[in-house]
Amino acid sequence: MPVVNVQMFEGRSVEEKRKFVADVTRTICDSLGVAPESVRIMITDMPRENVAVGGVLNIDKAGK
Amino acid sequence: MPVVNVQMFEGRSVEEKRKFVADVTRTICDSLGVAPESVRIMITDMPRENVAVGGVLNIDKAGK
Amino acid sequence: MPVVNVQMFEGRSVEEKRKFVADVTRTICDSLGVAPESVRIMITDMPRENVAVGGVLNIDKAGK
Amino acid sequence: MPVVNVQMFEGRSVEEKRKFVADVTRTICDSLGVAPESVRIMITDMPRENVAVGGVLNIDKAGK
Amino acid sequence: MPVVNVQMFEGRSVEEKRKFVADVTRTICDSLGVAPESVRIMITDMPRENVAVGGVLNIDKAGK
Amino acid sequence: MPVVNVQMFEGRSVEEKRKFVADVTRTICDSLGVAPESVRIMITDMPRENVAVGGVLNIDKAGK
Repeated sequence: MPVVNVQMFEGRSVEEKRKFVADVTRTICDSLGVAPESVRIMITDMPRENVAVGGVLNIDKAGK
Repeated sequence: MPVVNVQMFEGRSVEEKRKFVADVTRTICDSLGVAPESVRIMITDMPRENVAVGGVLNIDKAGK
Repeated sequence: MPVVNVQMFEGRSVEEKRKFVADVTRTICDSLGVAPESVRIMITDMPRENVAVGGVLNIDKAGK
Repeated sequence: MPVVNVQMFEGRSVEEKRKFVADVTRTICDSLGVAPESVRIMITDMPRENVAVGGVLNIDKAGK
Repeated sequence: MPVVNVQMFEGRSVEEKRKFVADVTRTICDSLGVAPESVRIMITDMPRENVAVGGVLNIDKAGK
Repeated sequence: MPVVNVQMFEGRSVEEKRKFVADVTRTICDSLGVAPESVRIMITDMPRENVAVGGVLNIDKAGK
């Protein structure tokens, strides 16, 4: 623990994910005072057609 | 909030998802009295080989 | 299926949840063409100190 | 209930999943005293580039 | 991995959970050929007023 | 997006959570290049009797 599940838009490269998990793990360890080996991060790549805010799919949004 | 995670069988078209998130968001807003922008829906498309009820994978089921 | 996990702020009454699950189930059935018995809704009551947007806990927010 | 969400590394065959859900459902029924039809298992196949322990992606690990 | 999230009705004793995680972990190891230390089980105790099937809260159900 | 669900052992103070979400949000923004308002963190406080590694409940573990 902690176990961290992150839902992000699909399209990130392996290099971006590599940096992301290293950075977030370091921050969690500093913030909570836990050991790195205890931090587990699971990324879910979300297709933009599967995410909606305000009842509108992300693919139908202008901007962000 | 609310954040809504929906696991449904894969195979829905974008048009079906578009209607689904619009309909469900409207119902949530009416029912809970929240603003549409506060409602976030994330859809997970589940392969039928990854879902089991009663110890039987959905792909092995007759009917539904 | 579908299985619907809803994270909402704690504090809703049983009566509000009763109406919520009835309304949302009806909408899902109409929208996806599934039978009511196949719709499962799980509510997670989130304490306001456990939810953050923009790095700020909900309890520290002015307004919503 | 129970609803069981399992995140495992991708790459398992349908035959392995078939055995897995049968075995786990039987064990849950024996252990909790519930009926098989009440047990729902959802498998999420996780790409190795989406899982990290200790800040290191699984694809970058030697061994396990 | 695997990481197993189990939503079950609240009310199980520690002794029941102790047996449950031991039994399920053993079954998973046998079925998938993984080491016990790699199996992580997280239990979520669900209040009966937070679970609905067919649009009806569990607390409003007769039977099951 | 991203939506981040963190399961951690119960017992953290509000002050610890306040720092945690601020720190993690800042790191995510730096790492992924997203705006703070798009980052949502949901914390689940896990009782030690509800978490098991290797088939052993955390409350039954010596150490960690």
